[in-house]
Amino acid sequence: MKDGLKVAVIGGGSSYTPEIVEGFLLRYDRLPIKELWLVDIEEGRHKLEIVGNLAKRMIEKSGLPIQVHLTLDRKKAIEGAHFISTQMRVGLLEARKWDEHIPNQHGVIGQETTGPGGMMKALRTIPALLDICRDIEALSPDAWLLNFTNPAGMVTEAIHNYSKVKSIGLCNAPIGLQKWLTQKYETPAANIYTEFVGLNHLHWVTQVLVNGQDKLLELLDQREEYAAKNVPPSEWDPEFLQSLGALPSYYLKYFYMTDVMLQEQLEAVKSGGTRAEVVKRVEEELFELYKDLKLQEKPKQLEQRGGAYYSEAAVNVMDSLYNDKRDIQTLNVRNGNILDFLPSNACIEVNCLVTGNGPIPLPVSRIPEHVKGLIHAVKTYERLTIDAAIQGDRGLVLQALVHHPLVPSVSVAKTLMNEMLEKNKAYLPAFYK
Amino acid sequence: MKDGLKVAVIGGGSSYTPEIVEGFLLRYDRLPIKELWLVDIEEGRHKLEIVGNLAKRMIEKSGLPIQVHLTLDRKKAIEGAHFISTQMRVGLLEARKWDEHIPNQHGVIGQETTGPGGMMKALRTIPALLDICRDIEALSPDAWLLNFTNPAGMVTEAIHNYSKVKSIGLCNAPIGLQKWLTQKYETPAANIYTEFVGLNHLHWVTQVLVNGQDKLLELLDQREEYAAKNVPPSEWDPEFLQSLGALPSYYLKYFYMTDVMLQEQLEAVKSGGTRAEVVKRVEEELFELYKDLKLQEKPKQLEQRGGAYYSEAAVNVMDSLYNDKRDIQTLNVRNGNILDFLPSNACIEVNCLVTGNGPIPLPVSRIPEHVKGLIHAVKTYERLTIDAAIQGDRGLVLQALVHHPLVPSVSVAKTLMNEMLEKNKAYLPAFYK
Amino acid sequence: MKDGLKVAVIGGGSSYTPEIVEGFLLRYDRLPIKELWLVDIEEGRHKLEIVGNLAKRMIEKSGLPIQVHLTLDRKKAIEGAHFISTQMRVGLLEARKWDEHIPNQHGVIGQETTGPGGMMKALRTIPALLDICRDIEALSPDAWLLNFTNPAGMVTEAIHNYSKVKSIGLCNAPIGLQKWLTQKYETPAANIYTEFVGLNHLHWVTQVLVNGQDKLLELLDQREEYAAKNVPPSEWDPEFLQSLGALPSYYLKYFYMTDVMLQEQLEAVKSGGTRAEVVKRVEEELFELYKDLKLQEKPKQLEQRGGAYYSEAAVNVMDSLYNDKRDIQTLNVRNGNILDFLPSNACIEVNCLVTGNGPIPLPVSRIPEHVKGLIHAVKTYERLTIDAAIQGDRGLVLQALVHHPLVPSVSVAKTLMNEMLEKNKAYLPAFYK
Amino acid sequence: MKDGLKVAVIGGGSSYTPEIVEGFLLRYDRLPIKELWLVDIEEGRHKLEIVGNLAKRMIEKSGLPIQVHLTLDRKKAIEGAHFISTQMRVGLLEARKWDEHIPNQHGVIGQETTGPGGMMKALRTIPALLDICRDIEALSPDAWLLNFTNPAGMVTEAIHNYSKVKSIGLCNAPIGLQKWLTQKYETPAANIYTEFVGLNHLHWVTQVLVNGQDKLLELLDQREEYAAKNVPPSEWDPEFLQSLGALPSYYLKYFYMTDVMLQEQLEAVKSGGTRAEVVKRVEEELFELYKDLKLQEKPKQLEQRGGAYYSEAAVNVMDSLYNDKRDIQTLNVRNGNILDFLPSNACIEVNCLVTGNGPIPLPVSRIPEHVKGLIHAVKTYERLTIDAAIQGDRGLVLQALVHHPLVPSVSVAKTLMNEMLEKNKAYLPAFYK
Repeated sequence: MKDGLKVAVIGGGSSYTPEIVEGFLLRYDRLPIKELWLVDIEEGRHKLEIVGNLAKRMIEKSGLPIQVHLTLDRKKAIEGAHFISTQMRVGLLEARKWDEHIPNQHGVIGQETTGPGGMMKALRTIPALLDICRDIEALSPDAWLLNFTNPAGMVTEAIHNYSKVKSIGLCNAPIGLQKWLTQKYETPAANIYTEFVGLNHLHWVTQVLVNGQDKLLELLDQREEYAAKNVPPSEWDPEFLQSLGALPSYYLKYFYMTDVMLQEQLEAVKSGGTRAEVVKRVEEELFELYKDLKLQEKPKQLEQRGGAYYSEAAVNVMDSLYNDKRDIQTLNVRNGNILDFLPSNACIEVNCLVTGNGPIPLPVSRIPEHVKGLIHAVKTYERLTIDAAIQGDRGLVLQALVHHPLVPSVSVAKTLMNEMLEKNKAYLPAFYK
Repeated sequence: MKDGLKVAVIGGGSSYTPEIVEGFLLRYDRLPIKELWLVDIEEGRHKLEIVGNLAKRMIEKSGLPIQVHLTLDRKKAIEGAHFISTQMRVGLLEARKWDEHIPNQHGVIGQETTGPGGMMKALRTIPALLDICRDIEALSPDAWLLNFTNPAGMVTEAIHNYSKVKSIGLCNAPIGLQKWLTQKYETPAANIYTEFVGLNHLHWVTQVLVNGQDKLLELLDQREEYAAKNVPPSEWDPEFLQSLGALPSYYLKYFYMTDVMLQEQLEAVKSGGTRAEVVKRVEEELFELYKDLKLQEKPKQLEQRGGAYYSEAAVNVMDSLYNDKRDIQTLNVRNGNILDFLPSNACIEVNCLVTGNGPIPLPVSRIPEHVKGLIHAVKTYERLTIDAAIQGDRGLVLQALVHHPLVPSVSVAKTLMNEMLEKNKAYLPAFYK
Repeated sequence: MKDGLKVAVIGGGSSYTPEIVEGFLLRYDRLPIKELWLVDIEEGRHKLEIVGNLAKRMIEKSGLPIQVHLTLDRKKAIEGAHFISTQMRVGLLEARKWDEHIPNQHGVIGQETTGPGGMMKALRTIPALLDICRDIEALSPDAWLLNFTNPAGMVTEAIHNYSKVKSIGLCNAPIGLQKWLTQKYETPAANIYTEFVGLNHLHWVTQVLVNGQDKLLELLDQREEYAAKNVPPSEWDPEFLQSLGALPSYYLKYFYMTDVMLQEQLEAVKSGGTRAEVVKRVEEELFELYKDLKLQEKPKQLEQRGGAYYSEAAVNVMDSLYNDKRDIQTLNVRNGNILDFLPSNACIEVNCLVTGNGPIPLPVSRIPEHVKGLIHAVKTYERLTIDAAIQGDRGLVLQALVHHPLVPSVSVAKTLMNEMLEKNKAYLPAFYK
Repeated sequence: MKDGLKVAVIGGGSSYTPEIVEGFLLRYDRLPIKELWLVDIEEGRHKLEIVGNLAKRMIEKSGLPIQVHLTLDRKKAIEGAHFISTQMRVGLLEARKWDEHIPNQHGVIGQETTGPGGMMKALRTIPALLDICRDIEALSPDAWLLNFTNPAGMVTEAIHNYSKVKSIGLCNAPIGLQKWLTQKYETPAANIYTEFVGLNHLHWVTQVLVNGQDKLLELLDQREEYAAKNVPPSEWDPEFLQSLGALPSYYLKYFYMTDVMLQEQLEAVKSGGTRAEVVKRVEEELFELYKDLKLQEKPKQLEQRGGAYYSEAAVNVMDSLYNDKRDIQTLNVRNGNILDFLPSNACIEVNCLVTGNGPIPLPVSRIPEHVKGLIHAVKTYERLTIDAAIQGDRGLVLQALVHHPLVPSVSVAKTLMNEMLEKNKAYLPAFYK
């Protein structure tokens, strides 16, 4: 590893690639990458070439000795890699569109990672990721797989429990909150301590210390909030927030303000289409920019894509693993005994100490009593979904949907199941043998 | 105890009293009651006299040496009692009417024990029961309190955790299923073994053995069902039932078929009023019958009231406690380690071995993975409700409602909270000091 | 099963056989055995014939339609059996002699089931029992294996965790205590309730109710005690017993009175030899009696052999399994969550409800704080021993010995290990490949 | 706190004081102490003056603006303190002498912290420390109490469970091992990662990473060892060490090599007396040196006293708490869920992340199966001892001794109890009311 690192990015043709390349360039002093492999599938060949060539121009401009390889041969990219990152989308944005549309048509939240849409994404994605893991087990068994592929919690849990690959699930929400606090309180990140409890896209922040001062009550009072581009803004009820006693993830609006969020989705569909359709247009514009041979850096417009700080989150983890940095990061990891009401092999999102041996989840100072049931309800749905994805079992799909807090009844669950499985047939070989 | 038992029935003026009196007469050989105290509050004096006199006529007819005492002095009734049973209703049927109406008005299930209605009933009832427990602690500390007062699970948990009284929560649903199986399979109850897992009004039956043969799959297939009078019939989806792998309580229709059940409630309101209003009429007719001095037995019409087998369930428990019978009954008891994801002091509904020392909950052969989240979600709501009732804390009421699976959003929760607390002002001194 | 039961007794040539045959005869009305197979190994052929013919005479005298089969073909005996009982001794009494002698030579308790002797017996016995289990899995997968073979706790745990056979471990100590209490208090067994907590040969009795009255303090005060023939009597210290707050098993004298017990062993060796040597003489005398063709019943002298009530314990379990009796018996079963500090797959000795589906362990009312460490220390040693037996791993043997509370140091442990493994070479193929 | 720190050292007259003063001087840049209060009891007035004046001369020489206060008024010292450190010895070395002698006289290990001697020290010390905690609760409720007073694990557990004081237990063994590894591998401490599992003076090191390389097997092979002055050297058995798979604390020799260690103690008594007597002479010599008005620094001879790196351990914790350093240190803290077989409120010794909010124990990568029983046995004894100290209950003392792995029988336990309680009468008001 000391001769220079090999990094493989699976889904290297993604519009996000300039983001992660920028991250590598900025952190080269701590993370001496020698080889960067961008790998994609046949359908992504065109995009891979465009964005891959931009990556090459960015590195050339930096003058750093990083070799960029573009390939469709996944095994070659994985072989001997030290870090592997995934940013893929099985079924592309077209599949996401239906993950959003079909639930909406039946009066249910349609969202990429939350609710029935998230379940469908998991059913498509888990088998694909486990297939990649088979390659990693054979070709780079000591590599760390940094999984950004959503729904990151379920995908990471599937990898932990059904492969031998060392994997960490990442999300940009925790680093986003930290950045927001940094600006709000005008203090460096090192002076801020936040404690996260929960699951991916279902967390609560139970401590916010700024320069050693507890700011949680203040933040709950002011109802100022941090939210990402992909979740529409909507104000929290103050009495609710104060009695909750913790800052909820902006994804929790789908659970706590279901009515408002559904209304917004239905209206958005009428105007610009679902989020998938908006993103599709943004991506097309981005790739137009990327083609410009004069472009040698990440274009500003990428920030509108969502996924802010994504590359910083990825590079932070690699840095800590490589340098045994032992700093605290919020990651998706195996539960162990941290949340004592969940199975030890469940994937949870909590603060971790990131050492050279991997992340060690930190015991939480408290698990809010109010939200234990909701965490367990969503984890139940997640585990049923993972089992369904692996076994190709309709009964488990139905049970996962019925027991998801956002699905109102068995009859709606059945309708969603039938329509969604049918629409995703091409990506579900386990279900359609 | 060997000189004859003293039994106190709190809420003795209830229309159910002839049922329990009949139970005592039938089981006198095993349960030699010497004194039966029927106690009620001033508002119930008239009913107490009517039903109390019927009780006296029933006993006279039997020729058994049981003395009946009618009283408004609770302390006298409790003093030295061996068994105390509760069948009270704080706020009477009028309060229940609003427990049903207010949620319905906001598109939410309105039900006596499930959802916001159940929460309100708990807020009214828990302080009243704990007040009774203070008397029991002082006047008959060794007595067993058999709690039928709904929501029986929450009330029993509150008694376990906030008093020293030995208490068991009872429900007639388990005995009802057993009776139904007995008839269906034409075999005595002793040849049937059913395993219950869950909470009061939120259980699943995970084993049905008839003469040693496993009948669960057969029952799931045929979708024949046992249901009580107070929950309207509605057919389960067969694919759902088979993938669930357990027989759900009929109360679970409020969770699994919320749309259908709500529709039925809204239509029922238009025709005959909510269930409370129906019951009110039935009760008035019953008391007309009870007044008839020639009546010396439980009238047939009482069976329409709901609460079938209620007295049999109560007498069974007393028999087993008194005679150290060590038989299996499904009861609401302290969890211990039985459901390993819930706190040890949570109240759960499972099979118990009923010994002279009290019930010992039996480890369950399996907890269905599918339903762990729903059990935990409802238990979370229950514990928040108990704390709210004791502390008189609006914030906890809001959190309890928000985290109840049947409440769709924070904004609906707030509306329900405001309207329901206001309507119940008279019964909530802890909230309106 | 309803056409009559097939029972196989492995180690059928044991001197105990007349005991179990008597048990079958006395309980024939509840347990209609059609075929009784006594099976032994070549070395036991002679004894099998003697005791098997006695068994035939006993049954003939009874006039019951039980067929007795004597065989050296284990597979034939096991095929289609409903109950299989084991009463074997790998290495015969000769091996036991050294289990007792070698520790004694190094100043350590030498006992059949407790300490280094028990470990050696486990190392010899576990592979033999698992070999039998392979046959049961293939030839009678629904059979219940009632395991009396010592050390019964370890052997049963090994069967539970390394085979699919349904097995229960039995010991005659619990029924012995019950008999003793029955006589002491002159009341039928049904009026006595005792609660056992712990492991096989390492239990504490934490409740003694006689006719509903708590007699524990009285028993601790009087220091009357129940003890079996194979453990020499020695009086408990009264202050110790009262502060312990529970009745210790007589096997616990090896832990609590190690000095006295060792002294007694060393003196016994000088006079009559170790217990194995005494038993050997008793057995020879018994077989002389068994040869007498006029003998048609269990001879009185068998009671001196130890193992009192052994057949009653076995027949009780078969009766409850066969008749779904749902009574309480103290058995060696899988822990589940009963003792919350031990692994769920550890074998423990506690009260169980014995149903047609098998035993359900009953939650204990309390685990004495004082003894948690000792239980865990012995269970640690037991689990290391089981793993050592299966893997044939010297390192695990050393760790098991070192961490046994009765072994004073690493150096003594090494000496014992070397001498004992060497002496048992013939029975330890996994260690001497 | 930002105006400068107030530190109180209870037992300030100890010979160790120059050590901790030196630590403060070396770390003044990170830990700006303004006031240092050395407090002692009347019996220690003379020593306090000698060592206090040396402290003053050391600080004067450094030129740093630290004020030293010598006092017998504990309340004054505690009031408003930020850090409080204890280095006291109830009963002085005279009591320790008997903690060593009495067990030795009955063939049992006599040691300051391990076995019956440790229990007696706990019985004397816990009430004294809780008395100090009452003052801290009243006068400096936000202060951190750094407890070095042995037996540090039990004392810290008593403080956690019977006071509101924020307290951490410290031991110099972990830092000692780290220093030893630093020298052996010639690498800075930052490049070494060791994982500790267990209790105070009963830990195992399960991971040793040096520059990212696993060195555990190498260390187990070479049997080089780190040991402190107060435990005599004695070589580990190589086969034992390798099958153990973890480095045992040198205190574990009392458990694993009881015979050898006892022999050494008995011989030492004959030559120079017990360790207490040796220490007494060393101390007298030290105080002679301290009196020298020309001495302005910690004398070399203090290093022979034992307790190496003690001040560094203390100052490290204060530094991390004060500066929110978030580094890893091995401390005695509340278990939570870390060792899942122990109660959550047990005190354990494991790696912690030391933040401004206090230490967060890190989940361990594995708990060696081999030693779970021994950990639980010693923790059982510890908890009985703590309860005994608080309740003044002889029965609990007897149970604690009987269940300690180093006490051979109930009869020896009783003798030790009687002699030791009697000898310590003056320090045990709870027992001799």
